[in-house]
Amino acid sequence: MASIKVLVTGAAGQIAYSLLHSIAKGDVFGQDQTITLVMLDIPPMATVLKGVEMELEDCALPLLKEVISTTDYKEAFSDIDVAILVGAMPRREGMERKDLLKANAGIFQGQGKALDQYAKKSVKVLVVGNPANTNCLIASKCAPSIPKKNFSCLTRLDQNRAQSQVASRVGVAANSVCNVIIWGNHSSTQYPDVRHALVCTADGTVSPVPAVVKDDAWLNGDFITTVQKRGGAVIAARKLSSAMSAAKAIGDHVRDWWFGINNKVCCSGASKLWTSMGVYSDGSHYGIPEDIIYSFPVTIQNRDYTIVDGLEINDASRARMDETAKELVEERDAALQFLSSS
Amino acid sequence: MASIKVLVTGAAGQIAYSLLHSIAKGDVFGQDQTITLVMLDIPPMATVLKGVEMELEDCALPLLKEVISTTDYKEAFSDIDVAILVGAMPRREGMERKDLLKANAGIFQGQGKALDQYAKKSVKVLVVGNPANTNCLIASKCAPSIPKKNFSCLTRLDQNRAQSQVASRVGVAANSVCNVIIWGNHSSTQYPDVRHALVCTADGTVSPVPAVVKDDAWLNGDFITTVQKRGGAVIAARKLSSAMSAAKAIGDHVRDWWFGINNKVCCSGASKLWTSMGVYSDGSHYGIPEDIIYSFPVTIQNRDYTIVDGLEINDASRARMDETAKELVEERDAALQFLSSS
Repeated sequence: MASIKVLVTGAAGQIAYSLLHSIAKGDVFGQDQTITLVMLDIPPMATVLKGVEMELEDCALPLLKEVISTTDYKEAFSDIDVAILVGAMPRREGMERKDLLKANAGIFQGQGKALDQYAKKSVKVLVVGNPANTNCLIASKCAPSIPKKNFSCLTRLDQNRAQSQVASRVGVAANSVCNVIIWGNHSSTQYPDVRHALVCTADGTVSPVPAVVKDDAWLNGDFITTVQKRGGAVIAARKLSSAMSAAKAIGDHVRDWWFGINNKVCCSGASKLWTSMGVYSDGSHYGIPEDIIYSFPVTIQNRDYTIVDGLEINDASRARMDETAKELVEERDAALQFLSSS
Repeated sequence: MASIKVLVTGAAGQIAYSLLHSIAKGDVFGQDQTITLVMLDIPPMATVLKGVEMELEDCALPLLKEVISTTDYKEAFSDIDVAILVGAMPRREGMERKDLLKANAGIFQGQGKALDQYAKKSVKVLVVGNPANTNCLIASKCAPSIPKKNFSCLTRLDQNRAQSQVASRVGVAANSVCNVIIWGNHSSTQYPDVRHALVCTADGTVSPVPAVVKDDAWLNGDFITTVQKRGGAVIAARKLSSAMSAAKAIGDHVRDWWFGINNKVCCSGASKLWTSMGVYSDGSHYGIPEDIIYSFPVTIQNRDYTIVDGLEINDASRARMDETAKELVEERDAALQFLSSS
């Protein structure tokens, strides 16, 4: 099997520190896949990157063929099979929202162009750095030679959080819950939807989550706000943002995209197994506007996703799905005006 | 299969942050073993522990049955099957060596007593916090009801570093090198010894490392100092001490202790496959003094290690092995006088 080349940006940061080892040991691309790992960060982090490279070497990992630390786009993006774009400008105190959008529009314009110019045309791109959906849209727009379907943003962390909240409430293992949906933006307007989710209870039966939880007030109230605000709650406790769980979710997202969705326990009783990914909306699904990156439930086959259509949407869901779409349209319109013409 | 209870101390720290996820997802105890993970740290870290607990929950890991965050020894050590003692007092600027030994003697006396009083008698103990060998000895002495053979300290990180240095030099994958030995103290006096190590070269033959490297000056010089000083080199680059690679080595150590040593690639041509662990020296192996924790090559069967005897030791090796033993005797004698009589 040919070796693959995987790029991680923001490689000197905390999420990457958890993620790189996981990729290098075979958790994401399998135990038979050798990997060249490319680590990109900004020039002030070059020495830290070297330290991470030393540690990866010290892990003595048989699948890790080569590590390339770089601060140069051409070296970073050339011939890559997978790009995991973790690095972004974080919001600093006193920073206006538009300044944040502008800074990140610049970064993802540059990375989109680098993808367009240097990466394999089959490259799979996952954007993690926030605002992830809009950064992903900009990267895609700036890489017209790469299919739009090769771009996605991360909402799997939100999905894992939602899945775990339900599992804990019901008293089952986390993988006994499936088909949770995250709709929309990876932001506090996201809509974690368990109306179509399933749970395997101890006796082996597969049932709709609402029928097992039997508490619609919780499912439509505290459950949703807990998931929406979980990132902030972790920061409040850890004094640092989520890294371990973000890296885990990135691994889940990319592995499912690569190999298809797997669930050993649940959903043998489900007609269809899906996961949530932020993907390009062409306007033909669930009345969501076109030309935004929106998180939908998707099935995956042959490294290609298909949006799950035909799910019944009630009025409350409709309103939440539209609200998060509206935010994404606004983000897009604000970000696009910052794209430089160069 | 019954669930097991695994304690990690220093659980709010950086090594634990990498380690906990790895344990919880099944890398160490296997994909069929459910786990109760107990996280201990000092009271000022209680809120951070809660944050780590939230993130473990957000990873949605099916094997993770329960997470217990605590700052209480009784709750932490009760009925545990495995104790991974990562937490220790780090050396701070201006701190004398004896102050460091005293502080850690106090910590590991307390944890030894807690093991004695609360843990399963079959508990496997791995000490990582430095000075790891001497901390391990103290814990063992303070837990007389638990067999000495259940105590070990980590030198696997040094072994992985040595293995990786050789693999990189020869141009093979890291798991194509085996039977590297770390003798003695997990400190700069350690002796990384490849005189008995083997390498699989591209044509499939298994050969002694010195015969393949063909550079005794490097093997007896830069190779040894690179491994001895690697921790400092990582700190100089990362500005933080090794965490990812330490967590990886901890996982390797405990997994090999639990399941036996595994090496998929190399050493089918070796008559015996070993790994290095800091274990109790009873004075009967290689002339190493009794009553210190010294890193030896060991084989493992049924969760029980056996020191590999009969390896030929030349004069240069003898001198290095004695030097690191001497340091351990001094550390022990200094630390023991700090044990309180309470």
